[in-house]
Amino acid sequence: MLELFKDVTIFVTMQYLPPPEAAPKLEICTILSAGINHIADSVIYKDTDITITTSNGVHGPQISEWVLGHLLAHTHRFRLFEQWQKEHRWANNWGSFTGNPVRDLVAQKIGIFSYGSIGRQVGRVAHALGMEVHAYTAHPKPTKESRRDNGYIVPRTGDREGEFPTKWWSGTDKASFHEFLREGFDVLVFSVPLTDATRGLMGKEEFEILKQTGQSPFLVNISRGPIVNTVELEKSLREGVENGGLRGAALDVVDPEPLPKDHTLWDAPNVYISPHISGAGTSYFDRCLDIVAINLKLRAEGKRLINVVDRKRGY
Amino acid sequence: MLELFKDVTIFVTMQYLPPPEAAPKLEICTILSAGINHIADSVIYKDTDITITTSNGVHGPQISEWVLGHLLAHTHRFRLFEQWQKEHRWANNWGSFTGNPVRDLVAQKIGIFSYGSIGRQVGRVAHALGMEVHAYTAHPKPTKESRRDNGYIVPRTGDREGEFPTKWWSGTDKASFHEFLREGFDVLVFSVPLTDATRGLMGKEEFEILKQTGQSPFLVNISRGPIVNTVELEKSLREGVENGGLRGAALDVVDPEPLPKDHTLWDAPNVYISPHISGAGTSYFDRCLDIVAINLKLRAEGKRLINVVDRKRGY
Repeated sequence: MLELFKDVTIFVTMQYLPPPEAAPKLEICTILSAGINHIADSVIYKDTDITITTSNGVHGPQISEWVLGHLLAHTHRFRLFEQWQKEHRWANNWGSFTGNPVRDLVAQKIGIFSYGSIGRQVGRVAHALGMEVHAYTAHPKPTKESRRDNGYIVPRTGDREGEFPTKWWSGTDKASFHEFLREGFDVLVFSVPLTDATRGLMGKEEFEILKQTGQSPFLVNISRGPIVNTVELEKSLREGVENGGLRGAALDVVDPEPLPKDHTLWDAPNVYISPHISGAGTSYFDRCLDIVAINLKLRAEGKRLINVVDRKRGY
Repeated sequence: MLELFKDVTIFVTMQYLPPPEAAPKLEICTILSAGINHIADSVIYKDTDITITTSNGVHGPQISEWVLGHLLAHTHRFRLFEQWQKEHRWANNWGSFTGNPVRDLVAQKIGIFSYGSIGRQVGRVAHALGMEVHAYTAHPKPTKESRRDNGYIVPRTGDREGEFPTKWWSGTDKASFHEFLREGFDVLVFSVPLTDATRGLMGKEEFEILKQTGQSPFLVNISRGPIVNTVELEKSLREGVENGGLRGAALDVVDPEPLPKDHTLWDAPNVYISPHISGAGTSYFDRCLDIVAINLKLRAEGKRLINVVDRKRGY
């Protein structure tokens, strides 16, 4: 099979990479996933400077829809409606909402950590809903140029120019993150890669800060489970809004995964759990191939490709 | 009590209106609801030309959130996730989605009938989600001016200039409506007042047209139940997508209301029913009073008020 690579210049792959000596003309490897940690040990990645491009950006729409759908479902009490529907109960009295009426999202504050392809599409739609969008990034974005998203964006979506946040936050240290949390958000979305710096980002101390803000945010995690400490998260949910706990949480990722059958988080109040599936969608591969097409065109024009992995940064 | 009205110039009310002779200085009556049919028999409405203003516009955010939340919840299969959660089941295999994978909303076509304050906020958010927005109005909107919404709009929301639709449709006759339906929508939202012209708008013939489009739309009704024929609606839901039926329906209003406990619509597949409650929200009165404040300012400046009832149109 290695014979096949003899004349290959561009190789599109999910995981497999040939030994470099079998592919002397190889210029570009395009990986059909957003992350590249699964190929980080390959010879091509470690010992060559063959261009590697990712499919980062393809997840924006489906995952942001998952995020916003859960926010709306919780805010508008869809599970209660479903219960009424199951009971064939036409509970049309405003009294049913006494003590817990629906507050729509207009002017509510959403903090998005961090502002990548998923975060930007969440920001775009949250802005359309009338929310106040706050973006957190590792590095400061003081200029228009620095706020630009130069990667792949699914057409009709995203925030290419970073126009939707009313406030930008940044920092890689704990103090900066705590300052952000103290702003007092109604909704907190975690769409940040898991690194040594973000593991356990939301722990005991951070949930304590949320309590001090008095905002009882709705917390969303669609990145990786270990970003949020499960014990503290569950504790906050069980405390409830009246005691400064979260108003709810939507989790497509948890720690550990799979969540054991007998784990108490499954039945915590106001929690929505799905099995790391928010990125599933029919358009996934079409969008990956869209990136390939864009890069073929850029290459033909002698221009800089998009979604190129910076081996120093590791993504 | 009538004595109180002696010097009143502006009166804010839900329903009660004084006899005109008791309020000789009355200039403006502000009704705390979007419609005015409940005061249409009053002497002030029928026999005076005292200005009447409505609270039309205050429902935009909460009802559009209800609409988009249901669209997202259905598209992303939240009820299935909820079932898995109840069973403590981490069903993380893409195979679970085989035959019915999630297709996100990007580039899907949404038809909004008609494009008032609720329809416009639906359009705004749908556009942010990457959807293609089509607006249907009774009268043609060929000019920028005609597309403008001159009524009250909740700040941060809506579509003041009518900028989000890619196509505008109009007409008060059946042929025009059928032409619109033949466009082939993925989502159809009914946000139109109930009149003699719109009663039974979606009947046997219209569901037949939907079938011919092959698009199996998700149908949303948040206006009034009798806009959609209940028997045909349920039939279409039970036919299922494979037979050209609806992919689902979200109904905050039904015909009849209350929906009887033994009605078979409660358990039709892919239907979401809530008891005419999508407009409930904590901001309702604040927004009504926002309109009062705006009109007081306009009046002081000698300008034209907003949300003034045209007695000839009847709204």
